[in-house]
Amino acid sequence: MDRTVNIGPVNINKSTFTVIAGPCSIESEEQFLPTAQFVHEKGASLVRGGIFKMRTQPDAFQGLGDQAIALVKKMKESLQVPFIAEITDPRQIDLLMPVVDCFQVGSRNMYNYELLKELGKYQIPVLLKRGFSALIKEWVKAADYVISSGNEDVILCERGIRSFEGPLRNTLDLSAVAYLKAHTSFPVFVDPSHGTGRPELIIPMSKAAVACGADGLMVEVHPNPDKALSDGFQALNYESFGSLMDQLRPFLSLMNKELSHG
Amino acid sequence: MDRTVNIGPVNINKSTFTVIAGPCSIESEEQFLPTAQFVHEKGASLVRGGIFKMRTQPDAFQGLGDQAIALVKKMKESLQVPFIAEITDPRQIDLLMPVVDCFQVGSRNMYNYELLKELGKYQIPVLLKRGFSALIKEWVKAADYVISSGNEDVILCERGIRSFEGPLRNTLDLSAVAYLKAHTSFPVFVDPSHGTGRPELIIPMSKAAVACGADGLMVEVHPNPDKALSDGFQALNYESFGSLMDQLRPFLSLMNKELSHG
Amino acid sequence: MDRTVNIGPVNINKSTFTVIAGPCSIESEEQFLPTAQFVHEKGASLVRGGIFKMRTQPDAFQGLGDQAIALVKKMKESLQVPFIAEITDPRQIDLLMPVVDCFQVGSRNMYNYELLKELGKYQIPVLLKRGFSALIKEWVKAADYVISSGNEDVILCERGIRSFEGPLRNTLDLSAVAYLKAHTSFPVFVDPSHGTGRPELIIPMSKAAVACGADGLMVEVHPNPDKALSDGFQALNYESFGSLMDQLRPFLSLMNKELSHG
Amino acid sequence: MDRTVNIGPVNINKSTFTVIAGPCSIESEEQFLPTAQFVHEKGASLVRGGIFKMRTQPDAFQGLGDQAIALVKKMKESLQVPFIAEITDPRQIDLLMPVVDCFQVGSRNMYNYELLKELGKYQIPVLLKRGFSALIKEWVKAADYVISSGNEDVILCERGIRSFEGPLRNTLDLSAVAYLKAHTSFPVFVDPSHGTGRPELIIPMSKAAVACGADGLMVEVHPNPDKALSDGFQALNYESFGSLMDQLRPFLSLMNKELSHG
Repeated sequence: MDRTVNIGPVNINKSTFTVIAGPCSIESEEQFLPTAQFVHEKGASLVRGGIFKMRTQPDAFQGLGDQAIALVKKMKESLQVPFIAEITDPRQIDLLMPVVDCFQVGSRNMYNYELLKELGKYQIPVLLKRGFSALIKEWVKAADYVISSGNEDVILCERGIRSFEGPLRNTLDLSAVAYLKAHTSFPVFVDPSHGTGRPELIIPMSKAAVACGADGLMVEVHPNPDKALSDGFQALNYESFGSLMDQLRPFLSLMNKELSHG
Repeated sequence: MDRTVNIGPVNINKSTFTVIAGPCSIESEEQFLPTAQFVHEKGASLVRGGIFKMRTQPDAFQGLGDQAIALVKKMKESLQVPFIAEITDPRQIDLLMPVVDCFQVGSRNMYNYELLKELGKYQIPVLLKRGFSALIKEWVKAADYVISSGNEDVILCERGIRSFEGPLRNTLDLSAVAYLKAHTSFPVFVDPSHGTGRPELIIPMSKAAVACGADGLMVEVHPNPDKALSDGFQALNYESFGSLMDQLRPFLSLMNKELSHG
Repeated sequence: MDRTVNIGPVNINKSTFTVIAGPCSIESEEQFLPTAQFVHEKGASLVRGGIFKMRTQPDAFQGLGDQAIALVKKMKESLQVPFIAEITDPRQIDLLMPVVDCFQVGSRNMYNYELLKELGKYQIPVLLKRGFSALIKEWVKAADYVISSGNEDVILCERGIRSFEGPLRNTLDLSAVAYLKAHTSFPVFVDPSHGTGRPELIIPMSKAAVACGADGLMVEVHPNPDKALSDGFQALNYESFGSLMDQLRPFLSLMNKELSHG
Repeated sequence: MDRTVNIGPVNINKSTFTVIAGPCSIESEEQFLPTAQFVHEKGASLVRGGIFKMRTQPDAFQGLGDQAIALVKKMKESLQVPFIAEITDPRQIDLLMPVVDCFQVGSRNMYNYELLKELGKYQIPVLLKRGFSALIKEWVKAADYVISSGNEDVILCERGIRSFEGPLRNTLDLSAVAYLKAHTSFPVFVDPSHGTGRPELIIPMSKAAVACGADGLMVEVHPNPDKALSDGFQALNYESFGSLMDQLRPFLSLMNKELSHG
């Protein structure tokens, strides 16, 4: 049986397809609010935006924190769209709770069971990204840490695994998506931005994600990717995101899925 | 510019989609001829069938050899469908030439440059599978060994890379397909049978292959997979192959591709 | 210049070699105290023992927690040996501080930067295991999270990377050890228990670790591996641990290293 | 029981350690003859040198071929040292037979079963390198192709596996060496040149190879690595090779092994 997860007014189930879009990091009002409005108009039903960023280098930009939270409040007041952000520490729960409709657990924290157990105590959905080299069964067991603490609303998100390949940032493992859809009840999303790290591959791999059964996408969009403070190299600009949404629709029809409403 | 490769009457180019189907190994007249006829009727424009098999274990079934060649002749007389088989040694060229319309070089031989140079001297197309852990650039360079010996007709075939994953035989790397379509002129095929090793994933991953830009599929079909002498666990039976072909057609329309004629 | 890290009376530097040994999990007084005494007598200068265990399955044994802490106190009173345990959450710091002389951060938490930043605020050494598929530079950058928060006492511990290999639990990457010794100032330890997952390989790989420049070992020892509550399959029994220590000594002499004193 | 393999006067068994050294490619008389003489004086009992080179790029230097064979003859007349070269095609057997005392099968040809079966028909030892991502069991089965054709004299050579790691060319898998020594009867060699791709790691990893039970080394030496026509970046110069041999001797004593005589 397929699981249904509701994020505010957004219903995630086998008949819907949900697009999450927005910038990697929330950088400023001028960057965040127009992007949120644009992606929502084009069909995204959840807005994303990094508040606390996990970065490999301690001295890289780590997110705006409190300042970003204020911008999210402003965005939600004007647009009434649900919002998702990454949580990296149980001690951020109280801070993020007022603005977040779904907690994202990033690849680096997929094995952070203390965080997962803590998130299991709240009734806010959790989008759990796959670890860099997590076995499918480890990923499903990590989801079980949330569920066994009391929260059934878990979405899995494939974002590429680490392989030997050079020109691509990761190897987007769509067969894991097909496998999870065949053998578990979880909604499964795909992040083609991290999954490929190359803008020119995001549209073809997003279509492929739909075709193999994915229930949603998480995509990075920035008004000016070249100026982004983090991961700009893999962000779509407005035009490309619009084109992605246009190209996805006929594939969704073939799969008997409709864009979920935000 | 996109390359066109013609295999007998079959035109492989950006407007067509080519399905290669048949058993892993040719086992007998009763197994091979009906399978060839069935897959052809359902839309496959090339028939495959192992004559000399590469097997990890020296004492595993290694193909019927000469006996299989006679069966291929019989098949081609009655059906007039082009045929593809794997070649594992330059010394097999004379033997295979009379029945083979396209030489397949398997993953184990992707780095066998002596074989590739030899195949470059003939005007028979070569379908070059990716090595188990070949970088995309190594794969393209291997194709260059054929081309620089004089034969331009090379098709690349993604068949899954070796990763840490357990329940799947390999990790089917569709992002390599999207990358090759964006950056090279080669036709790119996908082998979802070896790529996943699980029949229940072949249909979703074949749709995804179409959606991300692949130009063809190579699929293993057996009238009775449980009785196959090699790789039966990943073969489709007749019914599943029929279903695959039915489900592919609307995706081909969306991609502006037509099934090539055999 | 090589970094010196002192853990209580134990000096870790280029002239010493430090063996950390003990059970995967602290299971009972009868299991833990005799094991600690035995490994100490044989030359281990730090005792290890899991208090809170990270387990893939939520319903697997997760450690004795408080009860284990009491047993560690008892052990330290009778033996005066420094103790190391894994920390999996910043909220465990106060609890573990009274008994722990070095915090271990496990593979699953190598990317848990919030935890690393928190540990950087204390003056207790940190042994940082490599993530399952962490690049060497990501591992060094993770250490920088501790250091840039104020704590210079970081030891790196190689414990095997995830590869395609079947009979071995992981691929113990000793070339990473040689690389780190050539290019950084960190003490580098090796965990051959997790690194191989097979008792018969622990002695040869421990010798190899010494030979390529490692500064210490972390080994799992259990009085009765078959009865262990976690990871018993890779633990050494008393006899094998004694043999390991005997066989290591001449290799240490060759490398101009002495066993550090506990 | 441990297998003994004799290459001319060189006895490879559990009491000996055999060093194979020489340039990646034979480039000229001035390069090859002095190198052969130097490595032999320092304790190498087999000389290596590429005659036909496998190169990723079709237009890279592919070896001197016939001209190299003449130089090997000259070397063997003056030094009486056995010689090993890579064979890449069954059709090279007659050509190489007069000068080669051991056939090397490179990583790219580990799965080239037609070549392995052919080499099984001669009584010349075969050194079989591990494929880039070959499972241990596939490697052992590849050796069985030689053995089951009638030639028992097979040496396995670990040369690094393909992983995600960046600064190192490959991940030298010494645990595979320890595993093979524990579970098979094959002599096992290590190639630290390809295994690491970095000269500064060759000495520590060679010591580690001895310490975990290897029976020999294959090392690339060039009088002037910066000027080498292939793989110069990983070759040792004379001085470093001399230092390697000096540093290995005490480790050999500890392992109860003696340098084999050439």
